[in-house]
Amino acid sequence: MPPEPLSGHAGDAPLFNRLCLIGVGLIGSSIARAARERGDIARTVVAHTRRPETLAKVRALGFADVVEEDPARAVEGADAVILCVPVGAYAGVMAQIAPHLAPGCILSDVGSTKGSVIRDLLPQLPPGVRLVPAHPMAGTEHSGPEAGFATLFEGRYCILTPVPNGDPAAVEKITALWRRCGSMVERMDAETHDKVVAIVSHLPHLIAFTICGTADDLAEETREAVLKFAASGFRDFTRIASSDVDMWRDIFLNNRDALLEMLARFTEDSHALARAVRYGQAEFIEDRIRRGRRIRRGLIERKQA
Amino acid sequence: MPPEPLSGHAGDAPLFNRLCLIGVGLIGSSIARAARERGDIARTVVAHTRRPETLAKVRALGFADVVEEDPARAVEGADAVILCVPVGAYAGVMAQIAPHLAPGCILSDVGSTKGSVIRDLLPQLPPGVRLVPAHPMAGTEHSGPEAGFATLFEGRYCILTPVPNGDPAAVEKITALWRRCGSMVERMDAETHDKVVAIVSHLPHLIAFTICGTADDLAEETREAVLKFAASGFRDFTRIASSDVDMWRDIFLNNRDALLEMLARFTEDSHALARAVRYGQAEFIEDRIRRGRRIRRGLIERKQA
Repeated sequence: MPPEPLSGHAGDAPLFNRLCLIGVGLIGSSIARAARERGDIARTVVAHTRRPETLAKVRALGFADVVEEDPARAVEGADAVILCVPVGAYAGVMAQIAPHLAPGCILSDVGSTKGSVIRDLLPQLPPGVRLVPAHPMAGTEHSGPEAGFATLFEGRYCILTPVPNGDPAAVEKITALWRRCGSMVERMDAETHDKVVAIVSHLPHLIAFTICGTADDLAEETREAVLKFAASGFRDFTRIASSDVDMWRDIFLNNRDALLEMLARFTEDSHALARAVRYGQAEFIEDRIRRGRRIRRGLIERKQA
Repeated sequence: MPPEPLSGHAGDAPLFNRLCLIGVGLIGSSIARAARERGDIARTVVAHTRRPETLAKVRALGFADVVEEDPARAVEGADAVILCVPVGAYAGVMAQIAPHLAPGCILSDVGSTKGSVIRDLLPQLPPGVRLVPAHPMAGTEHSGPEAGFATLFEGRYCILTPVPNGDPAAVEKITALWRRCGSMVERMDAETHDKVVAIVSHLPHLIAFTICGTADDLAEETREAVLKFAASGFRDFTRIASSDVDMWRDIFLNNRDALLEMLARFTEDSHALARAVRYGQAEFIEDRIRRGRRIRRGLIERKQA
């Protein structure tokens, strides 16, 4: 169940006057829809999208008050700007919008990697603009402006990774925004965040993409049977694998160190288990299976599964 | 949708006079329940279980006509015996029951590995007893006689791996049994079966057990956050990991060669992707993600996902 918002509910004054969303795919368009439904997030929602065909779609969907093709014009006069594009595009977008950000404006984002976000945004941050990196842990298998919905963030965690010497008031306002979207807001440093998501999300995706390729490389006859008999194990893996290409390419490239470290740890562990299988070490294998069940129980007790 | 049974429906003569199930956990007790509900599988269902506490439970659940503690007495006079214990127990069970199998009796099983089953059963097979290895691809996260239900096999594949020079009439009768349980029956050789299940089921389980341990080994602070923020990726992995310890230990040990080969292929592929991440090779990463999506689409088109 989503927690009661700490501050504000429908009827309260909007947190922002002019909220600009740079990119309105699944996440950006869901923020816009939540803002429109509640009325207490922003008086005006501005949506920027780069591609002409998306522009027309966003206008037709009608979840934004203003749809603006030019990123510089989109951010003009905004007191909050949220980057909702793949994390690999941040540096380029920032170069375009930085000169046009209003003094006092809060700049936030929704990226799944946070060290890279701080690396790409902080050096270009104009004086007086306040950076509050954020990562709403929500999503579906679908992408694009038509895939969003106002309740996407309800009951889900949103992790803020405040920058050193940042503005506490700006962190509070972004916290309030996510609480009004229905999220449970947590704070941690960017390095811890990147390690945690590397193991709970990025490594599972790397594994899922990989095992699909491994199956695809099998001899024709076996591959056909694989598709036919894909049991629950393989199905769960491929569910993960049906994800947005640009987003995941950028996540892998921008959480490189944590991801490679977690993969190295995982590979060592899988080799240890493989060695036990090769030499028939039943007790070692049983221990590994029991640990899996224990973690699973831990998740169930936290109502995450 | 399950296919129309090729032969027989409720009201038809039972396929067997006396069906003996060696082991009545999730799978064995589900066969017993299906037989009792339909009436056209066996006139009498005999259940054997080793542990005294399970014996009492099976008697109380009442899904078998006869509950027998002694395996030798359990198989006496049976025209069909199905092994429903972990595959690692087959050789020992066979040593106990082989002298007591009636001539003409069909011996089958439900194990997830088939090369090992033929290896362990064929040398001990008495003359006139007909072996038909089978693998119903059905299951849940739960185990034990209370976890079974009559519709467990409906719409699921059951793979038979007939032995060379086996009796075609025996294969037909086991085919009919599984069709009456609602399954779609396929046939292949044991070697192909073991490769296919190694990639669609055994490797995903090995990975799931491993990644839970990898997470569990992280520093205290990170581990706490992992449990808290386990996103969908990790949740799907741990769903797989909540499986029966004895069954999976035996599967790993008895499909060793195919499992280690598939793990080796997977490890090579994951290292290739890791290398692309390390050196920023965006196109290679995109290609791997796209392949995952393509396999996923293949599964959806086959209504397996």
